[in-house]
Amino acid sequence: MSKINKGFLNLKENYLFIEIGRKIREYVEANPDKPIIRMGIGDVTQPLAPCVVEAMKKASDEMGVKETFKGYEDSGRGYDFLREAVAGYYKGFGVEIETGEIFISDGAKSDSGNITDIFGEDNVVMVSDPAYPVYVDSSIMNNKQVIYADATESTGFSPVVPSGVKADLIYLCSPNNPTGAVFTKAQLTQWVEYALLNKAIIIYDAAYEAFISDDSPRSIFAVEGARRCAIEISSLSKTAGFTGTRCGYTIVPKELEFYDDRGNTYSVLKIWARRQGSKFNGVPYVIQRGAAAVFTPDGLKQTREAIAYYMENARLMAETFDSLGVSYTGGKNSPYIWFKCNMPSWDFFDLLLSEKQIVGTPGVGFGKNGDGWFRLTAFNTKENTIEAMKRVTELLKK
Amino acid sequence: MSKINKGFLNLKENYLFIEIGRKIREYVEANPDKPIIRMGIGDVTQPLAPCVVEAMKKASDEMGVKETFKGYEDSGRGYDFLREAVAGYYKGFGVEIETGEIFISDGAKSDSGNITDIFGEDNVVMVSDPAYPVYVDSSIMNNKQVIYADATESTGFSPVVPSGVKADLIYLCSPNNPTGAVFTKAQLTQWVEYALLNKAIIIYDAAYEAFISDDSPRSIFAVEGARRCAIEISSLSKTAGFTGTRCGYTIVPKELEFYDDRGNTYSVLKIWARRQGSKFNGVPYVIQRGAAAVFTPDGLKQTREAIAYYMENARLMAETFDSLGVSYTGGKNSPYIWFKCNMPSWDFFDLLLSEKQIVGTPGVGFGKNGDGWFRLTAFNTKENTIEAMKRVTELLKK
Repeated sequence: MSKINKGFLNLKENYLFIEIGRKIREYVEANPDKPIIRMGIGDVTQPLAPCVVEAMKKASDEMGVKETFKGYEDSGRGYDFLREAVAGYYKGFGVEIETGEIFISDGAKSDSGNITDIFGEDNVVMVSDPAYPVYVDSSIMNNKQVIYADATESTGFSPVVPSGVKADLIYLCSPNNPTGAVFTKAQLTQWVEYALLNKAIIIYDAAYEAFISDDSPRSIFAVEGARRCAIEISSLSKTAGFTGTRCGYTIVPKELEFYDDRGNTYSVLKIWARRQGSKFNGVPYVIQRGAAAVFTPDGLKQTREAIAYYMENARLMAETFDSLGVSYTGGKNSPYIWFKCNMPSWDFFDLLLSEKQIVGTPGVGFGKNGDGWFRLTAFNTKENTIEAMKRVTELLKK
Repeated sequence: MSKINKGFLNLKENYLFIEIGRKIREYVEANPDKPIIRMGIGDVTQPLAPCVVEAMKKASDEMGVKETFKGYEDSGRGYDFLREAVAGYYKGFGVEIETGEIFISDGAKSDSGNITDIFGEDNVVMVSDPAYPVYVDSSIMNNKQVIYADATESTGFSPVVPSGVKADLIYLCSPNNPTGAVFTKAQLTQWVEYALLNKAIIIYDAAYEAFISDDSPRSIFAVEGARRCAIEISSLSKTAGFTGTRCGYTIVPKELEFYDDRGNTYSVLKIWARRQGSKFNGVPYVIQRGAAAVFTPDGLKQTREAIAYYMENARLMAETFDSLGVSYTGGKNSPYIWFKCNMPSWDFFDLLLSEKQIVGTPGVGFGKNGDGWFRLTAFNTKENTIEAMKRVTELLKK
C-alpha cells in the first residue's frame, strides 16, 4: 500500500506565491478592465544582457553540430568554464573558493530545498521569522523540527542569535528576502560563532548579494571560520535576470563536516556530490554558456545596469515611505521594501489590490512576525514604480 | 550538531558511471596514444535537430527583449505550449493525458530520484535486478527498504511479478535500461494488476519509448487500470538527444492516490505539485521552446532520423553477437545490447578496455543478476560501432 510522506500533511495548505497567483487571477477575471501593477513575486523584468543572449545562441549552434555537440556533463556539477567564472567572481570581492567546491545548479530554490536531503531527520532546523517559505516547507516535508529566530522591528528585521537554543541547521539569507535587511560583518560573525560553538551548519542564501553596494559581506565566506560551518547558495536569478533561465550555484567548503555521537565525521562536500550525482544531471550546456557570459567584463557591466535600474526604483520607493513617515526596512542593498501596513497583512493585500490595483506580498506569508508588514519589490519598470508609489501615497495618506 | 542523513552511509561507495569515468581517465592518462571507443554511458552523439536549435535561438532572442522576456513560470510545471505538445505526442500513440497531469522537468534522472520525496519511509520499494542505479540509490538515500524482482536470462531479463511479496512502490523501466528488454502489453498488464491488488504505485520509466518500433506499449497508460496505479517518467534525452540539454516530463494521473491505515486517501498529483512548487522552479524557457520543437512535424521527422541512425548501429551489434553465438537481449526496440560475457563483469570491463580500447558498462553495476553480463550502447557513430564490433569479434573469437 503506497503511503504518503507524512511531512506533507504538516504543510500549510497553499504555497504563498501560489495563493497570491490565485487571488490575482480571480481579480483579473472579475475586473478585466483594470490593469494591475505587479510588485509581489520577486521576479525581474529587465531582459537578459546582450552578451548572455549571444552566448546562448552560439551554444545552441554548437549543439546542432556533431563536432561541438555536448551530451551529459561528466560530473553534473557544472562545466569547468562556469565554475572557474564563479570562482573568479568571488575573488573579485576578496573571497577564495576552489572550483571543486562549486556545484552549478538550476537555481537557489532547488538547492535550498534539496540540500535538506543530506541532513538526517534528527537535525533541528532554525529559520528566521519571517523567512522565504522554501526553508520551512522543505524542512517540514523532510520531517525535521523547525524552530525560529525572531526578526522583528526592534532587530531591524535581521534575525539575532537566540540565547539558550540549540539548532543543528540554520537558514540565513542576506540581503534578506523578504525584509531587505542586510547583515553587517559583525552580525554575521555572531552567527558563525554560534554555529561553530554548536557544530551546526548554516545554509546561507546569498541570492541577492549583487544588490549590496556598501561594505556589507557579499558572501558568508568573508567571515573567518565560515568555511567550517557554512554552505552558500546563490543564483543568477536576481544578479542577471535568470528567473526564467534557471542557473545558480552552491558552494560547499572542503573543510565542512557532519558529526555523530561516536566522534565520526563525514565530508559534507562528498555527500552533496553523491546526492547530486544520483539525483541531478546538470544544467543545460546552453544555459551554462549564458551564465558564464554574466561573469565576463561585458556581462558584469551589462547586468550591473539592470541592477542599477532596479535600485533606482528601490530608492524612489524608500523616498515615498520616508515622506509618508512609514516604518520600513530594505530599499538599500536590496530590491525589497518591507513596510509597516498597520493592519493584518492579507487585509492590506486585498485593499491594495482592490483599491489601487497593486500586487504586493503579505508579510505574514513569511512568518508570524511578518503580520502587519508588507513587501513590495523594485523589479517593475520605473514608470510602473512611479505610478505605484503615487497610488500608495493616495492610499496611505487617507 | 549537524548530523548526516544515515541513508547515505548505506550507499555503495561509488556511483557506477563515476567509477567508470575514473577508470577511463586512469587508462587515458596511462595510454594517451590509444584512442578509446565509448559505448559505456548511454549518452547520445548525434547533434540536436535543426528545428530544436532554431527554436532555442529564437527563444534566446526573445529573452533579450523586454517585451518578450520571460521570468518565473507561473506554475513551475512547464509552459502550456510544451505540456500541450507532450499531450499531443501521447495522443499520437493512442494515450490520452490531460495537460494538468504533465509536469515538465529537467530530466528523468531528477524526477526518478525526487519522486521518492513524496513517499513515506515506510514504503517498501521494489526494483528489478538488474536496474538503473538511480532507483536503488535514491530509495536508500531516503531510508526506504529496497527489495528486488529478478530479471534473469530465464525471464529474458524482464522483471517478473514475484509471488507472495508485497511492495508499496515499484520502479519499472521499458525499454529496459540496462537490459534492452521490452515489456509486452501482457507482461505490463501483470504488473498493473499486481499494483492494483496491493494498492502499490508503479514509477514507470519510459525514457526509451521512442526506440519502440513494434506494438509493445510506449506508455504504461496504454494498459487499462494504470491510471490508478502508475506515474510515468520520461525524457527527451534519448528521444531527441537532450542529454546535455535537460528536459523531461512526469505524468501523474488525477486518479492516483496514497492510502493510509485509517482509510484516508491523498491525491498524488496534488502532493507532487506541492513538492515541485516548493523545491523546483521550472525548466529554462529557452529549453522548453527547444523541447516543444521536438514535437512538431519537422521535429519528429528530424529526431526520428537520429533514432534510425542509432538503431542501425544496434542492428549491426545484434548481427555481430548473433554471428558469435553469444546470448544477448536488446538490440531491437532499444539502443542497448546486453550480452553474456562469461566472466565477472568488471573483469570483462578491464579486458575490453585494455585489449580493445572499448568502454562498456559492467552488468553487475546494475545489480547482482547482471554479473557475467555486459552492456554496450548503440549511441556511438556508425564507423566506431563497426570498428568496435570488429574488435569485439577478435576478442570473443579467441
